[in-house]
Amino acid sequence: MERLEKTRPDHPVARCRGFIFDVDGVLCRGEDPIPRSAEAIERLRRGGKKVVFLSNNSTKSREDYLAKFERLGIPVVEDDLVLATYATAQYVAREKPGAKVYMVGAPGLRRELELAGLELVEDPFVAEYVVVGSAFDGTGRIREDNAHRITGALRALYHAGAKFIATNPDRIFPAKDGVIPGTGAVIGALSYMLDRQPDAIIGKPSTHIVEVALTRLGLPPGECAFVGDMDTDMLAGEKMGMTTVFVRSGAMTEEKLRSLGIEPDFVFDSVIEMLAVEG
Amino acid sequence: MERLEKTRPDHPVARCRGFIFDVDGVLCRGEDPIPRSAEAIERLRRGGKKVVFLSNNSTKSREDYLAKFERLGIPVVEDDLVLATYATAQYVAREKPGAKVYMVGAPGLRRELELAGLELVEDPFVAEYVVVGSAFDGTGRIREDNAHRITGALRALYHAGAKFIATNPDRIFPAKDGVIPGTGAVIGALSYMLDRQPDAIIGKPSTHIVEVALTRLGLPPGECAFVGDMDTDMLAGEKMGMTTVFVRSGAMTEEKLRSLGIEPDFVFDSVIEMLAVEG
Repeated sequence: MERLEKTRPDHPVARCRGFIFDVDGVLCRGEDPIPRSAEAIERLRRGGKKVVFLSNNSTKSREDYLAKFERLGIPVVEDDLVLATYATAQYVAREKPGAKVYMVGAPGLRRELELAGLELVEDPFVAEYVVVGSAFDGTGRIREDNAHRITGALRALYHAGAKFIATNPDRIFPAKDGVIPGTGAVIGALSYMLDRQPDAIIGKPSTHIVEVALTRLGLPPGECAFVGDMDTDMLAGEKMGMTTVFVRSGAMTEEKLRSLGIEPDFVFDSVIEMLAVEG
Repeated sequence: MERLEKTRPDHPVARCRGFIFDVDGVLCRGEDPIPRSAEAIERLRRGGKKVVFLSNNSTKSREDYLAKFERLGIPVVEDDLVLATYATAQYVAREKPGAKVYMVGAPGLRRELELAGLELVEDPFVAEYVVVGSAFDGTGRIREDNAHRITGALRALYHAGAKFIATNPDRIFPAKDGVIPGTGAVIGALSYMLDRQPDAIIGKPSTHIVEVALTRLGLPPGECAFVGDMDTDMLAGEKMGMTTVFVRSGAMTEEKLRSLGIEPDFVFDSVIEMLAVEG
């Protein structure tokens, strides 16, 4: 508690009551924890700060993420986790409680849609919403249960006039044998066929996911900081009027960030460095 | 022969030596022949005109189409058929003979690529060209052998710097239980992920397929007519400087065509009507 109080008044730790942390590149790199990230979170919490963890992940449920955080040594309950799967389910459930949803994606997305009280339908002609995440597995193969789902989603949008919601706009990810598709492959396929963009994309750099995270924090954006390693983090935080904190521990260099015309409020080497500043 | 000679000098049958016929909506509707279309073709041929048949089909080889034309009662050899599969293979083979090609699509596309002397590769990292057709079957399910191919194509384009060629830009098709995806689904998925359009699209309204058809006719475009039922037919013919002939027997009304700002040189109810005009 004392060390936090020694920060200067303009320091993010002094001026913010709530923190949204991006996960990959901020707390970990893939399966490897970033040194002392767990300690930083613990100290913030002991200092009375509220924290949530935000990820554009479109394939995992919050239940799936509990084990990941256990490996990182960061104690969490599901309510601390704001994944794109969860935020998408919340977005649709808020717009139309109990809506009939036709989904493209992984079991983790299905689970969150169910937990949000939405009705998963297999008949595209009765769908009110199409929700799309990644249709591919970790090797880049279309998941067996998704082999007919791009066409199902097309039919729900074309014939049934469903709304079109995407978990995130992520294009590609590195994997063992080369890049694999993100949710963007499904967005692109449907957008080209229908000459229509999604009605909403929930994940960063969209602010929809940040709004869900702020609801979890129960604080106004002006009292919260977004801590991330990517342009999309800074853009999402900035658009919401939050304090933006860039850490150099992730995939993007500070030079690259600035070359994109983005000026974060603060820059640190890593999350523990954000806590290391004294008086 | 005599009847053809009775046409006025400005009539397409008088002023053209070669004819490119679109297939669906012009000679047939799905499996049903359009009345007297076979007779019209026969009379043109007897009048000394050269004819080829052109289709944006991305899943069938010319061998596959022979049976279709037998059912229509129109005698053809493979050289009379200019399908998008074949035209795409010709385009790549002309640009780089024997090129290493990674393909997404149906067996008919594979067959035409092989017949054109191209080398089909399964390793995306050695590909010089990515050729995409439809990855879906007639029920809208991704073909089993294509489940990993969108990722393979992505890797060939992203890691190996392959050229990106699409058989056609077709978006969707009607099918028994609702619409199914065309090649556009694959183009859209790859374009979104890579933020890059295809280097070439061969099918209508592109002129690449028409150039291949004119090569088969062995005549300059000014001496040939494009006979079709869609805006894409008229656009492709017009861009090449051909006489354009619109028939009302297909999917598009003349009003719709003109509302798109397209003015064909001639309009007939059907192909037999094109032959019915006397002195």
